[in-house]
Amino acid sequence: MQNKKIVPRKLAGFWELDPEKELIFEIMLDRIKQVFLRHAFLPLDTPVMELSEVLLAKSGGEIDKEIYRFEKGSTDACLRYDLTVPLARYVAMNEGALTFPFKRFQIGKVYRGERPQKGRYREFYQCDADIIGNQNLSLVADAECIALYKDIFETLNLNAVIEVSNRKILFGLIEELNLSEKFNEIATALDKIDKIGKEEVEKILTDLGVVKASCEKLISLVSTKGEFDEINKALEKLSSSNTFKEGLLELKQIDSYLKDMGAEGSYLFNLAIIRGHNYYTGCVFEAYLSGLRQLGAVGGGGRYDNLAEYFTDKKLPGVGMSIGMSRLFDLCVQNDLLKIDITSKNKASIIPLGDTLSTCLKICNKLRSSGINCEVLFEDKSFKSKLKDANRSEVPFVIIVGEEEVSSQKFAVKNMQTGEQNSLSTEEIIKLMR
Amino acid sequence: MQNKKIVPRKLAGFWELDPEKELIFEIMLDRIKQVFLRHAFLPLDTPVMELSEVLLAKSGGEIDKEIYRFEKGSTDACLRYDLTVPLARYVAMNEGALTFPFKRFQIGKVYRGERPQKGRYREFYQCDADIIGNQNLSLVADAECIALYKDIFETLNLNAVIEVSNRKILFGLIEELNLSEKFNEIATALDKIDKIGKEEVEKILTDLGVVKASCEKLISLVSTKGEFDEINKALEKLSSSNTFKEGLLELKQIDSYLKDMGAEGSYLFNLAIIRGHNYYTGCVFEAYLSGLRQLGAVGGGGRYDNLAEYFTDKKLPGVGMSIGMSRLFDLCVQNDLLKIDITSKNKASIIPLGDTLSTCLKICNKLRSSGINCEVLFEDKSFKSKLKDANRSEVPFVIIVGEEEVSSQKFAVKNMQTGEQNSLSTEEIIKLMR
Repeated sequence: MQNKKIVPRKLAGFWELDPEKELIFEIMLDRIKQVFLRHAFLPLDTPVMELSEVLLAKSGGEIDKEIYRFEKGSTDACLRYDLTVPLARYVAMNEGALTFPFKRFQIGKVYRGERPQKGRYREFYQCDADIIGNQNLSLVADAECIALYKDIFETLNLNAVIEVSNRKILFGLIEELNLSEKFNEIATALDKIDKIGKEEVEKILTDLGVVKASCEKLISLVSTKGEFDEINKALEKLSSSNTFKEGLLELKQIDSYLKDMGAEGSYLFNLAIIRGHNYYTGCVFEAYLSGLRQLGAVGGGGRYDNLAEYFTDKKLPGVGMSIGMSRLFDLCVQNDLLKIDITSKNKASIIPLGDTLSTCLKICNKLRSSGINCEVLFEDKSFKSKLKDANRSEVPFVIIVGEEEVSSQKFAVKNMQTGEQNSLSTEEIIKLMR
Repeated sequence: MQNKKIVPRKLAGFWELDPEKELIFEIMLDRIKQVFLRHAFLPLDTPVMELSEVLLAKSGGEIDKEIYRFEKGSTDACLRYDLTVPLARYVAMNEGALTFPFKRFQIGKVYRGERPQKGRYREFYQCDADIIGNQNLSLVADAECIALYKDIFETLNLNAVIEVSNRKILFGLIEELNLSEKFNEIATALDKIDKIGKEEVEKILTDLGVVKASCEKLISLVSTKGEFDEINKALEKLSSSNTFKEGLLELKQIDSYLKDMGAEGSYLFNLAIIRGHNYYTGCVFEAYLSGLRQLGAVGGGGRYDNLAEYFTDKKLPGVGMSIGMSRLFDLCVQNDLLKIDITSKNKASIIPLGDTLSTCLKICNKLRSSGINCEVLFEDKSFKSKLKDANRSEVPFVIIVGEEEVSSQKFAVKNMQTGEQNSLSTEEIIKLMR
């Protein structure tokens, strides 16, 4: 045995749940997976690492300081920072073998080497679903991604609202106002309206050289939200640009598809939704927990024109939705929103009293064969400390097997919540636990 | 759009399944998880990275050339090469909060930067379960780990045999033969007996200075296999060393527990099982697919004296079992052993014929609400090419919605395997699909 000990610690900013919470988290992931499968998405599980050349194709090989990059032998690789670039690589590599639209989901960890801070992790779970078309992609795909949120939040027993917009509307208005070359700055300023208020945004816009009348139009645009008919009425007269009209028409179509999909009431339109990523070219959306909007979006996504332009000449338009699962889970814990039955927990602890270990193992085997999660507390501890362990683990039932019980084959079953105790045969125990 | 394209490729030696296979693989992982939960193991999901100081504690900070290591800012980190060191770190960190024996499972990817070759990956899945005691740990734990294999192979519809031994038996004999200082070399030679045969092993032993009588005893030992009574009879007179006898007695006890656990017939004793890792100190075992023993073990494990000695003074003995899931899956594919119902697949593709998209979306929503995996083929393609897509995806049912069907609310449902076609209402379709 060595004497000098290493202090056991994990990397700062890396997420790690205790087993009790992990049980709940995995049930949540599994339920989300079932929703993706119900919507006929296919699973993909790409490597955690990609070649740097591939992962950094978008930025022309330039490395963002957030990215984990390393060399091993002649290999220059990075840890993935999202699940979209690996999807693009996969689709471009396997183009010929895929049927389009290609609907894939991926649930996995992504890596961002940013400074650890509250609510931000260096390793965290993301759940993504994307639909990739070949040359064209119907707006049904956009509606499908939005409807996924509804089913996911339902299966997690969470109340949430999906806020939907279309970047074409903003782009059309800015175009008409002859401000296209300032699109990014203006969009960035408008994106802040919830945080800093109208007046501050107006100040920034004025500084950018936007005249008062245009400022008013832009602010009026991003202040518009509600059902489609409401926003349509409010926006109709704001612009006569074709792009603007096209964006509005797309939202109308998506609204209609969403109603056919039974998603009414789960979403609203909010023109303040802009999304930072420049690759979005049409419909965009963000998901917020009801009553906790101020804590920020727990997911988002949108339409992009071309998934894999860095890898292939083929035009592959897509639409994707994503949920930041580690963040969502934290918010649920902090706001007491976890309403998940932990079906995967241990149901019974079997305690030998005297020389009955063999009988305990046999009972345990029968229960497990009937699909019941259970265990024998086999360690050389006192009966009292075993009962204490069982209590601490919040197991619903304890089965006590004393020497007399071995001959009677009726065992003391204690309901740990009510304290009620009954003498039952193995078959009766199985019936009770089920 | 940029002109110079990057060739899309993944890192060599990294595993990636196509979605059809991934569906099956994930069902397998989920079934294994259910077995772990049935045995009341708790899930753990440690980060993919650990501090180098922690991960390399065992080797005194020395880095193995297989390990992926990198620096970022002031962080010196490695990708995990197994799931045991992260477990040791976790247990040492959270010692005070855990109830012992601590039973945890982890299913995750591990990383070994070795030269890619057939059957060897740089990133692959491992399923591990370990039981960690505080100061002491009953032999029931060893039996539990062996019994896990039985339940796992059963749930995967695979035939396998678990071969069990105890290093104390070999150690006792070597001790008695006054060869203890050559234990590692002798064990390494004996470990090769299946591959190179008795004569070659005898040659190596003789070169090591082992006299003929001792060679015979050692080779006789590792040639012993069968039920406990058989090996007991064969070995009883081979040595009178206490360690030897203790090892044999432990196997007898484990055999008895395994029978209580209903695992009879799933395992045998084979003294040729030695396991390379020096940290094993007692019972060791390996799992082989029946009839494919020559392809090597698909899993293994054993008893170790002290899980976290590099991190804490506390004595934490443990026993663990592991399955190399990527390798097992490959073997199953190559030998046509996958007998898994793909319950998670798409059950129905709904094809609009004419202007019926809205009705299709409504049917789809009703089916999904009833738990049926399905989708609308919404793309602007010909009916014929949609049927072709459906055929290619091997979906069991296609629902064709023509304009007349919208008014009759009876839809053409085609069984893609039999070719049979029926006109059914949505409710009838739901009944049929379930």
